[in-house]
Amino acid sequence: MDILTLVQNRHSYRGLYKADPVPREDLTAILTAGLAAPSGCNQQTTRLLAIDEPQLLAKLREVLKKPSLCSAPALICVLTNPREAYPGHCFARQDYAAAIENMLLAIVALGYQSCWYEGYLTNEDQISRQMAQLLKVPPPYELVCVLPVGEAAASPAAPPAKLPFDQRAWFNRLPSQGLVK
Amino acid sequence: MDILTLVQNRHSYRGLYKADPVPREDLTAILTAGLAAPSGCNQQTTRLLAIDEPQLLAKLREVLKKPSLCSAPALICVLTNPREAYPGHCFARQDYAAAIENMLLAIVALGYQSCWYEGYLTNEDQISRQMAQLLKVPPPYELVCVLPVGEAAASPAAPPAKLPFDQRAWFNRLPSQGLVK
Repeated sequence: MDILTLVQNRHSYRGLYKADPVPREDLTAILTAGLAAPSGCNQQTTRLLAIDEPQLLAKLREVLKKPSLCSAPALICVLTNPREAYPGHCFARQDYAAAIENMLLAIVALGYQSCWYEGYLTNEDQISRQMAQLLKVPPPYELVCVLPVGEAAASPAAPPAKLPFDQRAWFNRLPSQGLVK
Repeated sequence: MDILTLVQNRHSYRGLYKADPVPREDLTAILTAGLAAPSGCNQQTTRLLAIDEPQLLAKLREVLKKPSLCSAPALICVLTNPREAYPGHCFARQDYAAAIENMLLAIVALGYQSCWYEGYLTNEDQISRQMAQLLKVPPPYELVCVLPVGEAAASPAAPPAKLPFDQRAWFNRLPSQGLVK
């Protein structure tokens, strides 16, 4: 599948996953795609931890709670070291976001589904900290996102509507009436 | 080219570009790939402005200065609205980073080169603000990145070394000796 089709075929999947394990070969390919993303000043601030061991998944599911996340046969935890690339400038968030996008594309290309769970983890109930404790994530690394990986057990829901191209992209001149927020 | 190969073939290109214009069809495909990226709570905080008009490129080059950037026949400016998706949580940086990664992959897939210029613009000399003024970017939008697009005029330099897989990704357990920073 070419990249232009692939980016259109990637949507957040929030349904249940089949229990079938994801082969290590596929998980390795997905992680490798994540690590190939660029990083500010090549600082490589992102680390990845894939979970596919049933006992460990069971422990994480007690914390994760959401049925979709809890049904996934594999989870990829995204860790970041939020340090400055040079004084006053930290690109760690951009770094892990680019790595996540690469992994989401690789996941879909390999026939699996996923969803970028970040706010759900970093909200007030601090699921991310509970996960980090359970997985012994050493400071200064922070666990900021989890990607479920597995085959869809249900038909994906229709993707949410997006603004049309001409309200988000232009050539040479921005629209004189201002930009939609 | 499959996505697993494509992510490995994408490298930051800092050489000169050929003057040949990039067809609008290709620029549109690249922008479309950017807009297809996910965004936190589907807030679509990213806007894109492609520049291919010679007079406007000439004005931007006075500000951009770097020979590589100044030789590109097209520039994609990335704008963000850094607003909260919900109280206390802004995902705008992740949103535009995912859009940039999609565009970098599309650029390479279409036979062009690029480089993620962000720190260069947002550093103390505030090139991004000068560009935003020139392009009449309305607040609260901020210009945060520029991607040159064009065919390479020189052989790309060897990509910078990255840490090996086993120092950045693991299965189920993080290494007991801690993580390389």
